[in-house]
Amino acid sequence: MRAVRLEAVGSIALREVDKPDIDPDELLVRIEACGVCGTDRHLFHGEFPCTPPVTPGHEFSGIVEAIGKSVSGFAVGDRVTGDPNIACGRCAHCHAGRVNLCSKLRAIGIHRDGGFAEYLALPQKQAFILPASLKPTHGAFCEPLGCCLHGVDLAEIRPGSSVAVLGGGVIGLLIVQLARLAGATTIILSTRQASRRALAEDLGATATVDPTAADVIDTVAGPAGLAPGGVDVVFECAGVRETVEQSMRLARAGGTVVIVGVTPQGMKAEFEPFDLLFRELKVLGSFLNPYTHRRAAELIASGAIEIDRLISRQVALEDAAAVIANPPAPGEVKVLVVPHPG
Amino acid sequence: MRAVRLEAVGSIALREVDKPDIDPDELLVRIEACGVCGTDRHLFHGEFPCTPPVTPGHEFSGIVEAIGKSVSGFAVGDRVTGDPNIACGRCAHCHAGRVNLCSKLRAIGIHRDGGFAEYLALPQKQAFILPASLKPTHGAFCEPLGCCLHGVDLAEIRPGSSVAVLGGGVIGLLIVQLARLAGATTIILSTRQASRRALAEDLGATATVDPTAADVIDTVAGPAGLAPGGVDVVFECAGVRETVEQSMRLARAGGTVVIVGVTPQGMKAEFEPFDLLFRELKVLGSFLNPYTHRRAAELIASGAIEIDRLISRQVALEDAAAVIANPPAPGEVKVLVVPHPG
Amino acid sequence: MRAVRLEAVGSIALREVDKPDIDPDELLVRIEACGVCGTDRHLFHGEFPCTPPVTPGHEFSGIVEAIGKSVSGFAVGDRVTGDPNIACGRCAHCHAGRVNLCSKLRAIGIHRDGGFAEYLALPQKQAFILPASLKPTHGAFCEPLGCCLHGVDLAEIRPGSSVAVLGGGVIGLLIVQLARLAGATTIILSTRQASRRALAEDLGATATVDPTAADVIDTVAGPAGLAPGGVDVVFECAGVRETVEQSMRLARAGGTVVIVGVTPQGMKAEFEPFDLLFRELKVLGSFLNPYTHRRAAELIASGAIEIDRLISRQVALEDAAAVIANPPAPGEVKVLVVPHPG
Amino acid sequence: MRAVRLEAVGSIALREVDKPDIDPDELLVRIEACGVCGTDRHLFHGEFPCTPPVTPGHEFSGIVEAIGKSVSGFAVGDRVTGDPNIACGRCAHCHAGRVNLCSKLRAIGIHRDGGFAEYLALPQKQAFILPASLKPTHGAFCEPLGCCLHGVDLAEIRPGSSVAVLGGGVIGLLIVQLARLAGATTIILSTRQASRRALAEDLGATATVDPTAADVIDTVAGPAGLAPGGVDVVFECAGVRETVEQSMRLARAGGTVVIVGVTPQGMKAEFEPFDLLFRELKVLGSFLNPYTHRRAAELIASGAIEIDRLISRQVALEDAAAVIANPPAPGEVKVLVVPHPG
Ligand SMILES: NC(=O)c1ccc[n+]([C@@H]2O[C@H](COP(=O)([O-])OP(=O)(O)OC[C@H]3O[C@@H](n4cnc5c(N)ncnc54)[C@H](OP(=O)(O)O)[C@@H]3O)[C@@H](O)[C@H]2O)c1
Ligand SMILES: NC(=O)c1ccc[n+]([C@@H]2O[C@H](COP(=O)([O-])OP(=O)(O)OC[C@H]3O[C@@H](n4cnc5c(N)ncnc54)[C@H](OP(=O)(O)O)[C@@H]3O)[C@@H](O)[C@H]2O)c1
Ligand SMILES: NC(=O)c1ccc[n+]([C@@H]2O[C@H](COP(=O)([O-])OP(=O)(O)OC[C@H]3O[C@@H](n4cnc5c(N)ncnc54)[C@H](OP(=O)(O)O)[C@@H]3O)[C@@H](O)[C@H]2O)c1
Ligand SMILES: NC(=O)c1ccc[n+]([C@@H]2O[C@H](COP(=O)([O-])OP(=O)(O)OC[C@H]3O[C@@H](n4cnc5c(N)ncnc54)[C@H](OP(=O)(O)O)[C@@H]3O)[C@@H](O)[C@H]2O)c1
Ligand SMILES: [Zn+2]
Ligand SMILES: [Zn+2]
Ligand SMILES: [Zn+2]
Ligand SMILES: [Zn+2]
Repeated sequence: MRAVRLEAVGSIALREVDKPDIDPDELLVRIEACGVCGTDRHLFHGEFPCTPPVTPGHEFSGIVEAIGKSVSGFAVGDRVTGDPNIACGRCAHCHAGRVNLCSKLRAIGIHRDGGFAEYLALPQKQAFILPASLKPTHGAFCEPLGCCLHGVDLAEIRPGSSVAVLGGGVIGLLIVQLARLAGATTIILSTRQASRRALAEDLGATATVDPTAADVIDTVAGPAGLAPGGVDVVFECAGVRETVEQSMRLARAGGTVVIVGVTPQGMKAEFEPFDLLFRELKVLGSFLNPYTHRRAAELIASGAIEIDRLISRQVALEDAAAVIANPPAPGEVKVLVVPHPG
Repeated sequence: MRAVRLEAVGSIALREVDKPDIDPDELLVRIEACGVCGTDRHLFHGEFPCTPPVTPGHEFSGIVEAIGKSVSGFAVGDRVTGDPNIACGRCAHCHAGRVNLCSKLRAIGIHRDGGFAEYLALPQKQAFILPASLKPTHGAFCEPLGCCLHGVDLAEIRPGSSVAVLGGGVIGLLIVQLARLAGATTIILSTRQASRRALAEDLGATATVDPTAADVIDTVAGPAGLAPGGVDVVFECAGVRETVEQSMRLARAGGTVVIVGVTPQGMKAEFEPFDLLFRELKVLGSFLNPYTHRRAAELIASGAIEIDRLISRQVALEDAAAVIANPPAPGEVKVLVVPHPG
Repeated sequence: MRAVRLEAVGSIALREVDKPDIDPDELLVRIEACGVCGTDRHLFHGEFPCTPPVTPGHEFSGIVEAIGKSVSGFAVGDRVTGDPNIACGRCAHCHAGRVNLCSKLRAIGIHRDGGFAEYLALPQKQAFILPASLKPTHGAFCEPLGCCLHGVDLAEIRPGSSVAVLGGGVIGLLIVQLARLAGATTIILSTRQASRRALAEDLGATATVDPTAADVIDTVAGPAGLAPGGVDVVFECAGVRETVEQSMRLARAGGTVVIVGVTPQGMKAEFEPFDLLFRELKVLGSFLNPYTHRRAAELIASGAIEIDRLISRQVALEDAAAVIANPPAPGEVKVLVVPHPG
Repeated sequence: MRAVRLEAVGSIALREVDKPDIDPDELLVRIEACGVCGTDRHLFHGEFPCTPPVTPGHEFSGIVEAIGKSVSGFAVGDRVTGDPNIACGRCAHCHAGRVNLCSKLRAIGIHRDGGFAEYLALPQKQAFILPASLKPTHGAFCEPLGCCLHGVDLAEIRPGSSVAVLGGGVIGLLIVQLARLAGATTIILSTRQASRRALAEDLGATATVDPTAADVIDTVAGPAGLAPGGVDVVFECAGVRETVEQSMRLARAGGTVVIVGVTPQGMKAEFEPFDLLFRELKVLGSFLNPYTHRRAAELIASGAIEIDRLISRQVALEDAAAVIANPPAPGEVKVLVVPHPG
């Protein structure tokens, strides 16, 4: 079969490889769609640890083509999405139920072969059934949506809450939708590209801000701002120093900041401890998708989340390496690799 | 009566003033003891907003000498402690139950006359009865203990948790005791003065660190440290940049940092957002004593908290101004002003 | 002015009384609308303790006609809604922040004169501004919505949750709407009247059940049910033994039951402790509206809640006593008393 | 080797069986001690579902005698305790992180061979290391302590809380200790046997009640009771209807009831929904030991829990069947089976 192989940092190409063998408790999945994520680009550039050679791709879904002999609950022909993050089940974090902090976490698409390929071997405990009637491309959004659900769960949004989202990539645009779904009645997105601001307003943002055109803090939290004094919950989804530093200043007293964006390792940001104390802020990291993949799959299946408008392009396996090796095109939200078009 | 008057920034003196008139819903309290706190020194130096002239002193207790005509539930002769923080009951924060964030908070000893005086007028809703049998000096610790209880509540310590406390002033030493009471089995205090480290070990710390003699992060969280990988909960109680920055590095993955120390307004500290995200930390400000004063009074009354060893000196009203105007003496934990000695 | 006076159990009539005097911290409110609630009928029948003579009516809003001399933040002409539940601020529950459990709770419309009158005296701390542009009738729904918000907060609904609501009165129909707003994707209402089931489906219920036509437990939680195994959250909003007993059987393992309905004092219901334990249920009472009135007012003001379709009839003060003294007409959801029609 | 075999309901005997084979990811454990629990007696009487023939015993610890070839982190000679509850990792509850509700839970000592034997096969993910210096008998208490920790976590005890424990078996006596460790300052135990009441007072109970000699509700929550108005947290640990019904009446307004005791399946208990609502109680089932076994092992290892005084008798394998087949002797708290005495 064909698979996109990351062979070394900076070296990625489509190769002919063997179809994966499956263990007794694994499914052989024929990939229908696999999303390209910033992490894939970080792997290519060596900014995120992995051990090449490996097939990247951790946002995938597809059709079960074969099942291992201990598998139950899945049949050939089922559409499935896979949670790529395999916790060891044995470390102190796993034993405390904090599986996303597993000290031996192995991720499909990072530590073992992922979805930029015709087929993938998926342990049955990582697999979740999707409806046969679902659009084949939608299943690829379960993983990012699961990460967003975790962040939204931590934020404890309630009906009537106000929310700010910093960064209008796919993560920001999914969080806008989840915040609306969770009952937020004020949802403000800050992102630079006008096309994303327009899209966000269609998806549930009640206002948007261009951070290059205005002072975000003043526009949002200033006395004449969109949410004077700040919002109940801020989601940092851009992963840059500027937005991390904005995040605590956009929260109202008693508010919550959820850090979702991945900034470069070692990069420092500043905050004012006096302000964090006197306004009694809560600052929370939100990492991966612990216990949320099934809910994400159900939400995708229910149609409650707009997916089609987040798909900028669908490309064939032949084009995947180039997409990963290059920065995203302007305006692009999510590019999907579709290994079996047609 | 005599009262210590802060007449302007930098100007404090004992004066003869009128005994306070009390409103119908107030108690006239004959002060037995009032603790000197860092905030009193900040008021003197103009580092904390207040409107002189005022009598400072917000950590007080005493005996009811007279009651207003609408007062019920208190009688002349009762020993009482006062919660100095009077919330307005009407702002958005009060209406959301976040009284410590009240936008019109008025504090006794800051915005109205406090406890460095022979008598004080105390609204009955701020008053809490203490046992007649309690040592007169102990009631002065209800306010700081209430602040510590709030921080400890936010931290969600469980039996078997590991805890680090940064800063061994009275706040740090009370939190050491509360952490032990809450079931922490590892309690590490970092503070520079040897006498405080020794005291902390008597009060429940399982280990102490001298931050000038060793690298705190390595000693605590390093591979051969006291709690390899870090502790479940870190309390920042020193109020300096160095400890704020240590705090997030001492927490284990999935851990909680509670910022209790007051750093100078405007001072910035650095953190690494990548680390906060990947180790999914929780960083919480803990401000004042919302809904904890009664529990603090009950704990003090129960004798569960060691108080006597936290009292470094008892001084008369005559000496209070000098104590406030000067930095604490080395080794001093808490100085009490006792207006009616003997 | 005219006011509906409950003069003794079983005796209620429209009377000419003095316009209320207001205290310095009170507002004189010209009532625009006041909802009739089951509690008003209980007061009339002596099934709920109160001390006649009193003017009932605790779901009111209106226009500020005069302000006391200590009032700030309100002006003559403002539209306001009032939180009727006045906590003492001094009992152990108030001091613990549990104001709805206040042991000296005084409610407007129960312990002091309420809204079935031309005017009412409202302490400013119980008052919340509504937009001038809001329909005059909508403000009367802030109080019941605040109670529902409290229940929904306790339930911790998350995007994708499944919910069952038992009882389709105004409380049930508001909770259906809040559950939808909070992201529930399955919302099942059980109520006997077909008109209410139809209304609920318009307001967000994804399915409805007629408890007289089918076995509710089987229809909802049975193997071929609407939510096999049960739902994440059950709200008991009917206040009868049958629904209380259903509630725990409709929750899925790990689910939450919120009891909102008021059953007769002394009435017992049965449950199976083995089942509560093995399925690890959480059963929560939800009483009144602690800290939710402001959010309720904001939600009403935002238009996020459908109100008009919950108003069955608007009656004049002249008809109020009869409405209260008689059971609700079939199909009726909420009757509003409008003291100044036109 | 010798093992106690439950061969059918009512039929249990010591037999010679093969030493267990171990899978690649299993440990062969030489049992040092295995506690007899009420569940073992229920299995014998057919009151709890299991599929004989099986070796019961789920409260065990011992020494690793051999390791499977995929095992890491354990070596021959290590002392280990085992969490008997093996979750499937794949059902909806496991995927939601609620492993104790696993719909395919398989327990060692119920669904596969347990600890009343010379040796046992233990999957490495269920194993936790204990110190070599620990008394061999103490490891057998990790499982019951883990169940108690889960209940205590759910209860959210805080420093200064008041607690009532109903039932002074091993579960009640461990919860008394955990409540003290969690900072409860009032801890009241109700149990019939005087010897247990005396023991509880040594272990941290501040008061005890004999339910046959006094009205428990009045003695505890009555106006002149030990905790007038009731306690913050009630733990039901007796598993009988009487105590279940007491539990909700012993909680103060705003309090929490945790049901830990197992009552007979199908048995009903009564409660008053009006009371649950008006006093806003929280009633929680606490089932098994999700994510608590490691903490339990650490607490046991730390010596923070008194164990020796809970051990009533140690018996040899030869006597185990008789102990299980007969009711506990009066005064007995925990009987340990010690397969390799000496
Ligand atoms: N925590 C987790 O579990 C998790 C999971 C998945 C992804 N992530 C992280 O989440 C972040 C977002 O992911 P993504 O896929 O949405 O990536 P993305 O497409 O890179 O989105 C981030 C967007 O932020 C916007 N941005 C950049 N600078 C900004 C600024 N100063 N102010 C406002 N917006 C700014 C950019 O859009 P404009 O050009 O429109 O400004 C950018 O496209 C990434 O860091 C990713 O690594 C975290
Ligand atoms: N959040 C609240 O509600 C609240 C309430 C009350 C007080 N506070 C604040 O809590 C803080 C502590 O109060 P306090 O009364 O205990 O004050 P304190 O006596 O000033 O205690 C702080 C102690 O921190 C120690 N310290 C200084 N630098 C350190 C370092 N680098 N590493 C370790 N320890 C260091 C010092 O002791 P050594 O000389 O031994 O190092 C110092 O005495 C203050 O900032 C106060 O304003 C907050
Ligand atoms: N906890 C609080 O803070 C709070 C606040 C306000 C109100 N409440 C209480 O909440 C409850 C609901 O209030 P409401 O104003 O909506 O009262 P309501 O109009 O009396 O609504 C209850 C409805 O439940 C339905 N019902 C009766 N038996 C039923 C059954 N066996 N199965 C299903 N539905 C049944 C009835 O509608 P059908 O005829 O259609 O069946 C009835 O109209 C009342 O008990 C009220 O006292 C509580
Ligand atoms: N939820 C879980 O995960 C979990 C885990 C383990 C065990 N359990 C259950 O927890 C319960 C306690 O376990 P255990 O091992 O401690 O069992 P136990 O020895 O049977 O303890 C229960 C004790 O309750 C006392 N009791 C009986 N009736 C009473 C009454 N009316 N009032 C007060 N006390 C009464 C008895 O002691 P006196 O003779 O002194 O009255 C009895 O020994 C059992 O039901 C067990 O199945 C649950
Ligand atoms: Zn792990
Ligand atoms: Zn306020
Ligand atoms: Zn009160
Ligand atoms: Zn399972």
